[in-house]
Amino acid sequence: MKISIIGLGLIGGSMAKALKGFGSEICGYDINKEVLRAALESGAIDRAEENLRDAVSGAGLIIFASSPETVIRNMAECLSEGTDAVVTEICGVKKEIIDFVENNMPGINYAGLHPMAGKEVGGFENSEAGLFRGAGFIIAPSKNSNAKTLGLLEEISKYMGAGRVITNKPETHDKVIAYTSDLPHIVAAAMCQEFPPEITMAHTAGAFRGTTRVAKIDPGLWRELLLKNAENIIPFLEIYINNLSKLNAALKNGDGEFIYEFLKISRENKIKILES
Amino acid sequence: MKISIIGLGLIGGSMAKALKGFGSEICGYDINKEVLRAALESGAIDRAEENLRDAVSGAGLIIFASSPETVIRNMAECLSEGTDAVVTEICGVKKEIIDFVENNMPGINYAGLHPMAGKEVGGFENSEAGLFRGAGFIIAPSKNSNAKTLGLLEEISKYMGAGRVITNKPETHDKVIAYTSDLPHIVAAAMCQEFPPEITMAHTAGAFRGTTRVAKIDPGLWRELLLKNAENIIPFLEIYINNLSKLNAALKNGDGEFIYEFLKISRENKIKILES
Repeated sequence: MKISIIGLGLIGGSMAKALKGFGSEICGYDINKEVLRAALESGAIDRAEENLRDAVSGAGLIIFASSPETVIRNMAECLSEGTDAVVTEICGVKKEIIDFVENNMPGINYAGLHPMAGKEVGGFENSEAGLFRGAGFIIAPSKNSNAKTLGLLEEISKYMGAGRVITNKPETHDKVIAYTSDLPHIVAAAMCQEFPPEITMAHTAGAFRGTTRVAKIDPGLWRELLLKNAENIIPFLEIYINNLSKLNAALKNGDGEFIYEFLKISRENKIKILES
Repeated sequence: MKISIIGLGLIGGSMAKALKGFGSEICGYDINKEVLRAALESGAIDRAEENLRDAVSGAGLIIFASSPETVIRNMAECLSEGTDAVVTEICGVKKEIIDFVENNMPGINYAGLHPMAGKEVGGFENSEAGLFRGAGFIIAPSKNSNAKTLGLLEEISKYMGAGRVITNKPETHDKVIAYTSDLPHIVAAAMCQEFPPEITMAHTAGAFRGTTRVAKIDPGLWRELLLKNAENIIPFLEIYINNLSKLNAALKNGDGEFIYEFLKISRENKIKILES
């Protein structure tokens, strides 16, 4: 089976490396010719494709690994005549893509896939075969997804090292991800809007490093992800701001009882989440 | 030199282990007799002291390793008649303790010390010699701190594995720590006030785990730390809430330009902080 990966950034590049040995051939395409050459020379891909049509031709599995808008544009360009391949993409927001597929190419063997893995740094140069080891993989089926597609996506997820594979409706995926991925990126980015001039890294420990780890963000990609999932993010963000405002009032009033309860709820909920 | 450590929790216990071989004897005191016995039996301390007076008697270095209120109470109880020892404490907020020492025992050889290290879990059972490896240590002198005291604190910091030792006025310490430690704990605790019922750990990646790492917090300790530093925390928390509110408005209005700029500032500032 020919596996085609469209987009060889951090996720696409890491998938190429992690899928080595699964199927007969890993083919790659990237709009950036230097990235494509680097992927070929490093052995991450077996063949560098010249264009999208060649990339998808004869493939048994096609993985689109770009931002949502690029994925939709690329799908429209090379899959409009249909394909027998199993098709997936790795985007962090699913509803819009799944709507696009259902409306424009309902006959293809498609389901969404979201590997819950990343790094503070992007690009092929940071990709690695071990990126997905132990990670959760979320399969988001469309209403037309068939058993062959879902089975293959589960199989490749495990092959790449998935710790756990779950299946979510696109609406559920986008809602939960608004809380577990979009909100943490906003939290981190807001932390780094302003900082005291006296700061040094010697003033920071795990708490600061953890809460701001993803603040070194890709602004273009995340503008797109946040806007596309705004409907789901806004309610969580407003709850978050409201809770912060209540704590701020308690700090102003010296209300130790409120602060204690607030921290106790945090502790109890974090333990519940860790067990989920 | 006899080293006395008063309070054998995560930090005190780790310091006992990390200071092994520095001086002639590590003596420990803890209000919890089981902890004291465990510390002795594990070899973390060479001698278990029965009471505070015995603990400080004949010591060359006394380290108070509890919450600020306990430190002040313990100091009042056992140092009121003075001591020749170098005295320090490890609290996350300094102004109040330093004011207490300056007003009540100005003659002792004291300066504050804050090791920027911790864990999600507390207590002696989680203490380890390597906890401080690479960590920043902040020395916060009082107006009476002498060279002998500051020199010894720098020496023990390095012995315990400090990555960097800096000196800050207590006001500067408390201001910067409000941003690098108190605010991240609030950020994490507020993230875990409410969560979607559909969540599983498979939905979480590094961003969520990082921003909520310290949400499993000790509510009693952190109520005290937050209240004691409220004056410094409130301005940072209000800036933070204000920035989140602006981003929320941009999400509602679909203002991609604002979101892009917001994320770009975060990226640039995080890089500056990493280099600080």
